[in-house]
Amino acid sequence: MAHSPAEQRAMARALELAMRGPRSRNPRVGAVVLSPAGEVLAEGWHRGAGTPHAEVDALSSLPDGAARGATVVVTLEPCNHTGRTGPCVEALIRAGVARVVYALDDPGEVSGGGAARLRAAGIDVEGGILADRALALVGAWVTAARLGRPHVTVKWAQSLDGRAAAADGSSRWITGPEARSDVHARRAEADAIVVGTGTVLADDPALTAREGEKLRAEQPVPVIVGARETPADAAVRSHPHPPLFYDTHDLAFVLDDLWDRGLHRVFVEGGPTLASAFLAAGLADRVLAYVAPVLLGGPRLAVGDIGVPSIDRARRLRVIERVPLGADLLFVAEPEHPAGDPPPRDIGDRAPVSAGPPRRT
Amino acid sequence: MAHSPAEQRAMARALELAMRGPRSRNPRVGAVVLSPAGEVLAEGWHRGAGTPHAEVDALSSLPDGAARGATVVVTLEPCNHTGRTGPCVEALIRAGVARVVYALDDPGEVSGGGAARLRAAGIDVEGGILADRALALVGAWVTAARLGRPHVTVKWAQSLDGRAAAADGSSRWITGPEARSDVHARRAEADAIVVGTGTVLADDPALTAREGEKLRAEQPVPVIVGARETPADAAVRSHPHPPLFYDTHDLAFVLDDLWDRGLHRVFVEGGPTLASAFLAAGLADRVLAYVAPVLLGGPRLAVGDIGVPSIDRARRLRVIERVPLGADLLFVAEPEHPAGDPPPRDIGDRAPVSAGPPRRT
Ligand SMILES: NC(=O)c1ccc[n+]([C@@H]2O[C@H](COP(=O)([O-])OP(=O)(O)OC[C@H]3O[C@@H](n4cnc5c(N)ncnc54)[C@H](OP(=O)(O)O)[C@@H]3O)[C@@H](O)[C@H]2O)c1
Ligand SMILES: NC(=O)c1ccc[n+]([C@@H]2O[C@H](COP(=O)([O-])OP(=O)(O)OC[C@H]3O[C@@H](n4cnc5c(N)ncnc54)[C@H](OP(=O)(O)O)[C@@H]3O)[C@@H](O)[C@H]2O)c1
Repeated sequence: MAHSPAEQRAMARALELAMRGPRSRNPRVGAVVLSPAGEVLAEGWHRGAGTPHAEVDALSSLPDGAARGATVVVTLEPCNHTGRTGPCVEALIRAGVARVVYALDDPGEVSGGGAARLRAAGIDVEGGILADRALALVGAWVTAARLGRPHVTVKWAQSLDGRAAAADGSSRWITGPEARSDVHARRAEADAIVVGTGTVLADDPALTAREGEKLRAEQPVPVIVGARETPADAAVRSHPHPPLFYDTHDLAFVLDDLWDRGLHRVFVEGGPTLASAFLAAGLADRVLAYVAPVLLGGPRLAVGDIGVPSIDRARRLRVIERVPLGADLLFVAEPEHPAGDPPPRDIGDRAPVSAGPPRRT
Repeated sequence: MAHSPAEQRAMARALELAMRGPRSRNPRVGAVVLSPAGEVLAEGWHRGAGTPHAEVDALSSLPDGAARGATVVVTLEPCNHTGRTGPCVEALIRAGVARVVYALDDPGEVSGGGAARLRAAGIDVEGGILADRALALVGAWVTAARLGRPHVTVKWAQSLDGRAAAADGSSRWITGPEARSDVHARRAEADAIVVGTGTVLADDPALTAREGEKLRAEQPVPVIVGARETPADAAVRSHPHPPLFYDTHDLAFVLDDLWDRGLHRVFVEGGPTLASAFLAAGLADRVLAYVAPVLLGGPRLAVGDIGVPSIDRARRLRVIERVPLGADLLFVAEPEHPAGDPPPRDIGDRAPVSAGPPRRT
């Protein structure tokens, strides 16, 4: 059965509802319950880890039995596994809904399969409605689920000739205010912001997401990778989130641990050594290169060795967008992964970040 | 007296006529002779070094006395010095013209001053009509005249991270076919194409301007700078123009000599060492950076040391255009000169290239 205009409208509404959810480590999902006649019975959205998923949120606002024969319109395929909130498919079956319309397939190996389970229970299911718009909302989360590790954005600022700093190490500021404020907005969308010890020791960055001088509502967890000690009075220690310290160079290990903590969108802000290590390891899903119209020359490269021996092995980038920011130009791009993507892995219960103390490995 | 609509139309026509002239070491100039009633009596343009200037070309097509009382409309201020063709101002005075309308001031110290000389002879003179369009036609030539040395474009191709080649030296091809064909079109507009011995020895380039496999009509003179010998069988020795060899690292000397040979638009194609030397010396008037969406890492930098010690001394670029070429992006930019511009110098007789043999200094 093709979807009706009322269902299409309900999906657009569900996408709006999804946006009410916090930008967090969980995907933003919205749902609308329609009567068989196409009237809106209930609305719901996901408010973050540990709270009900959108479809359950919507159903829970209805009296018992009121959803019998109804259509549930939801932006993500209902999940099929028992996390802290119980699988959504069971709730839908129990409520006696007749039909489920969703936008985006759940990419998780365990949580996925919801559509099949609903069909097996005799429920009419249709997926793919406004999937593009739903994907735009939860893209990084989907990539993370597919890869079975956090989605990694590697960001750097460079001169046109690829330098991160002048010969004496000075780098404030290569790029202009528009580019810097763009960085802060994007930081706020990440769960974790990762730097190497070199950057902490050289720049003493706060690693907060700010709007002007003001802290933004959403703050990524600061993560420092490397053996050297972060000074006791380092600015990052005053971050709203206690920093995580990893005394290792094993980036896959770091990503695994961030994943386990529910930090699924990772923003790598440098410096050059760490950024290059992520690129060399094929662990960069997205690149943000802020290019300033200056030439610097000298030895301070924005990207160091990334293991490319010859031109035919160049790491190609799919440029998604070129964004003018004042005099600067932001390249948003996806590197080709050197090897194939790892197989998908369960996304778990869209788990919350552990509230545990900063750790050392 | 303000210029008339007929004069404005005649200037537009003169600009069209100018384009018939060859792209060469001389500026392209056009002229129209109008009767006192505004009718077109004659047209002319400059056909290249050693041939009459445009206004003289136009006058020469008229019978003696026919230009008496006429208005001459010309895209460049008539020259005031005796070169091989005699000063144009004298020809205009002799012809008895009543009025001269021109677009662009002649920037040369000696050839300039034509307007003043005409006025002193009682001729009505007005400059600046459609000057923008005239400037677009002869921009590099004007810059050259103002600087008293050739106008220098420094071109390179680079990965996004600023590399000119992969670690093993392979660089064919960083950029795609659209970018490469753009380079060939721009080569054809230059009088000389300059490379270092490093590029000749590494790449054995032909240094011709091609369209597909075909040689273009206009070919820059190939110039090789550096001490090392160019092999007897080097491709550049088969260039339509005999190459010029300079056994020196003194770029100002090279430019001076090219200037004296009438080669006023110079296209520096690398490699990195030579390009950086031009940038460091403040001898780059225009930069063309073809940026490919790849990452290479490694030691082969497109721009080496350019003498910038700290970020506040960064060499800023005025980006004039960003031109997408296939997957690549061309930055057309003007570097700020570190020091002030040198004073203007005479542009001479818009002299032709010496036909002498290749030389060593
Ligand atoms: N332009 C930009 O966008 C930008 C951004 C940030 C910083 N910077 C500049 O970059 C400079 C600092 O550069 P940097 O390269 O030293 O900083 P970095 O990349 O932040 O730190 C490098 C350090 O990270 C540790 N590390 C962790 N994992 C590693 C791995 N897999 N491989 C290698 N090292 C690993 C190592 O420290 P241990 O020895 O402690 O283990 C290494 O020395 C500063 O001048 C800063 O201003 C520029
Ligand atoms: N990506 C690009 O756009 C591009 C363009 C061209 C070449 N390339 C690549 O660049 C590589 C060659 O690099 P390169 O840097 O050796 O080439 P280069 O810049 O063409 O040649 C360098 C040589 O030029 C001479 N030279 C002349 N004037 C100089 C000055 N003022 N300062 C210093 N040296 C001066 C020196 O040679 P002597 O010792 O003989 O005096 C010097 O070793 C090749 O791999 C080639 O493929 C890339």
